[in-house]
Amino acid sequence: MSDFRQQALDYHAKPVPGKIAIQLTKPAETVTDLALAYSPGVAEPVREIAADPNAAYQYTAKGNMVAVISNGTAILGLGNLGPLASKPVMEGKALLFKRFAGLDSIDIEVKHSTTEDFINTVANIADTFGGINLEDIKAPECFEIEQELIKRCSVPVFHDDQHGTAIVTAAGMLNALEVQGKELAEVTIVCMGAGAAAIACMELLIKCGAKRERIYMLDTKGVIHTRRDNLTHHKKLFANNTDKRTLEDALDGADVFVGVSGPDVLPAEALALMAPNPVIFACSNPDPEIKPELAHSVRDDVIMATGRSDYPNQVNNVLCFPFIFRGALDVRASEINDEMKIAAVEAIRAITKEPVSADVLAASNLTSLTFGREYIIPKPMDPRLLQRVATAVAQAAIDSGVAMLKELPAGYMQG
Amino acid sequence: MSDFRQQALDYHAKPVPGKIAIQLTKPAETVTDLALAYSPGVAEPVREIAADPNAAYQYTAKGNMVAVISNGTAILGLGNLGPLASKPVMEGKALLFKRFAGLDSIDIEVKHSTTEDFINTVANIADTFGGINLEDIKAPECFEIEQELIKRCSVPVFHDDQHGTAIVTAAGMLNALEVQGKELAEVTIVCMGAGAAAIACMELLIKCGAKRERIYMLDTKGVIHTRRDNLTHHKKLFANNTDKRTLEDALDGADVFVGVSGPDVLPAEALALMAPNPVIFACSNPDPEIKPELAHSVRDDVIMATGRSDYPNQVNNVLCFPFIFRGALDVRASEINDEMKIAAVEAIRAITKEPVSADVLAASNLTSLTFGREYIIPKPMDPRLLQRVATAVAQAAIDSGVAMLKELPAGYMQG
Repeated sequence: MSDFRQQALDYHAKPVPGKIAIQLTKPAETVTDLALAYSPGVAEPVREIAADPNAAYQYTAKGNMVAVISNGTAILGLGNLGPLASKPVMEGKALLFKRFAGLDSIDIEVKHSTTEDFINTVANIADTFGGINLEDIKAPECFEIEQELIKRCSVPVFHDDQHGTAIVTAAGMLNALEVQGKELAEVTIVCMGAGAAAIACMELLIKCGAKRERIYMLDTKGVIHTRRDNLTHHKKLFANNTDKRTLEDALDGADVFVGVSGPDVLPAEALALMAPNPVIFACSNPDPEIKPELAHSVRDDVIMATGRSDYPNQVNNVLCFPFIFRGALDVRASEINDEMKIAAVEAIRAITKEPVSADVLAASNLTSLTFGREYIIPKPMDPRLLQRVATAVAQAAIDSGVAMLKELPAGYMQG
Repeated sequence: MSDFRQQALDYHAKPVPGKIAIQLTKPAETVTDLALAYSPGVAEPVREIAADPNAAYQYTAKGNMVAVISNGTAILGLGNLGPLASKPVMEGKALLFKRFAGLDSIDIEVKHSTTEDFINTVANIADTFGGINLEDIKAPECFEIEQELIKRCSVPVFHDDQHGTAIVTAAGMLNALEVQGKELAEVTIVCMGAGAAAIACMELLIKCGAKRERIYMLDTKGVIHTRRDNLTHHKKLFANNTDKRTLEDALDGADVFVGVSGPDVLPAEALALMAPNPVIFACSNPDPEIKPELAHSVRDDVIMATGRSDYPNQVNNVLCFPFIFRGALDVRASEINDEMKIAAVEAIRAITKEPVSADVLAASNLTSLTFGREYIIPKPMDPRLLQRVATAVAQAAIDSGVAMLKELPAGYMQG
């Protein structure tokens, strides 16, 4: 067994199994404490909530609690292994929510017979929480699931594999294009992969200004075009009226490649076909669509991002999801809308253009970081993310009318 | 607003809303920590659990996690106020699980359209947890709900309002009868109330030796007898072939009164009709079926228990539920069966016959406690409950063949 494998198993098993536990936030020692916490004192907040459901935010943990919910149908890169096997990932996500944003988060693994059954189960328990983070649910079901749950739930529902990835990708892409001197509205984009993340990335780039007709999306059968049969609803939205059929056809003269597919699918020869100053987001993990070393050896005008922490420009969802929920919950947003997503994109972008603290440099084993081809995306350990992204998202929720609070809490995120 | 009411609301609202939070049990500071907790390290326990579902107990928090689940249809004495209003109670129960047994516990409030919908929702999420504590679900639906969930879930499911109450009542009752010099098999029992707790109490007393034909159960229409129409399934099981119709008829010469009904329904004159050396469990809360002062003024041969902490002999579920789950989870029992319930009854009984620690006396504002009419039930703060009840329950699970472990863990509950 490899050292890392054993280390990962030990981390999960010792000294106690798993990664999260429950902590009491109130005294529970004396008979008096317990009379307040439980019977008879607990009847008072019960009555308040029965009279006004919003009192739940005042008297229970709801307002700081995010459920991380999966059915285990698309676990990491491992596939459909069922709900229980997804539990370490979901607990891991809960750990990240707490670690990065101070949000209490609990995993819920759901087995189900049909998509409708899954939706119904999650909708039935949703009021327990302040927000719902959907995770590792396979496409195309994930689209219907998220859409229906947004309709049925009064709290924000967010499928991170779609939108977290899309937000960080859009932030990095806009910065990369800025460095390359290109406009999103004018570039030709090749998207390798047509799963949940790919579709969400392209939809968000379009909302940020990209043109749908300049996007070529490829699945395992090649370019998705208007003469193909049996396309799913979401693929059909990207069917391009084009004669291009292969990756090489699509890449010829293209400005941007976004890979959310598999290892080494972008050959060096194909990269050579792209327009000057191209941008490559090779997000397949752990093995990207093209290795940065190879890409840079083919041409020196390329900007690259990957999903890996050991190369510059890591596309990492943790830059987004803890903070978008933090902002949404702090103003009791009823949903996470496009305005909030775009506010997160801009907040993430802006951080790269300001000086980095010595702590962040040390955590990244770097001596300097300056906005440019090797720094278009913030580092995950950057403490400014919490303050900046949460504030931007909360303000966008207020401005777009989906927040219960009408202004930011006094001194919000001021340390 | 009364002082206590304000104090209870403040307790729930300040300094943070609610009573529970999430705590990380593993380091999550460095990039290395996060690589073990999440991607890529988390893939290792995922693979282990995909290969063997029991590995979830080794690598996740499942084995120490109890869900407290309600639909809010019978909240305390307040009635059907809906799932969200039940949240403070469910969080309170989670607090008690942690406080008394070190179990991590999270509340889940479920809204639903039908009983089947509720059952399906809970069954779909059950694998997330090591056990399910159902709470504040109204009769008669609670019977079907518990029964179906026991069938559908691989983890223990326990409706505390039924069985927790029954176990503590049975322990106290057996002790009271011992003091009064009576045998459970020979006594006549009057049960005022025919809800979930009443039915569960009588069923457990029967399993402990009481005779079904010597039980007279009363609902709002009087004695439940074989000539009554439209009885629910569970009431029918207690339909007595008798001419007795009123509470007075039933109490005439009876040895035991168990009240799980409402305040002051047992008049002094009716108490006077009972056999010598009667036992009264007046569990309506906060106002018992008869006040202890009144009962003792009518006759001095009575032993009384109530639901209140300010009288001797409090029937309090907290004497049971944290420890029955502790024992069940510690040997990975697949259910909580009658053997385990009866083991809990005997363990709770036994504690009252041994000397009490000074700490327990101090917490109870007492200078001495000796087994007898004023001490047939242990005090909630007695630390022996955890060790004794959990051990007895775990051993009973092993002996009755429902535990995954075949013997108690080495040094189990030895401090």
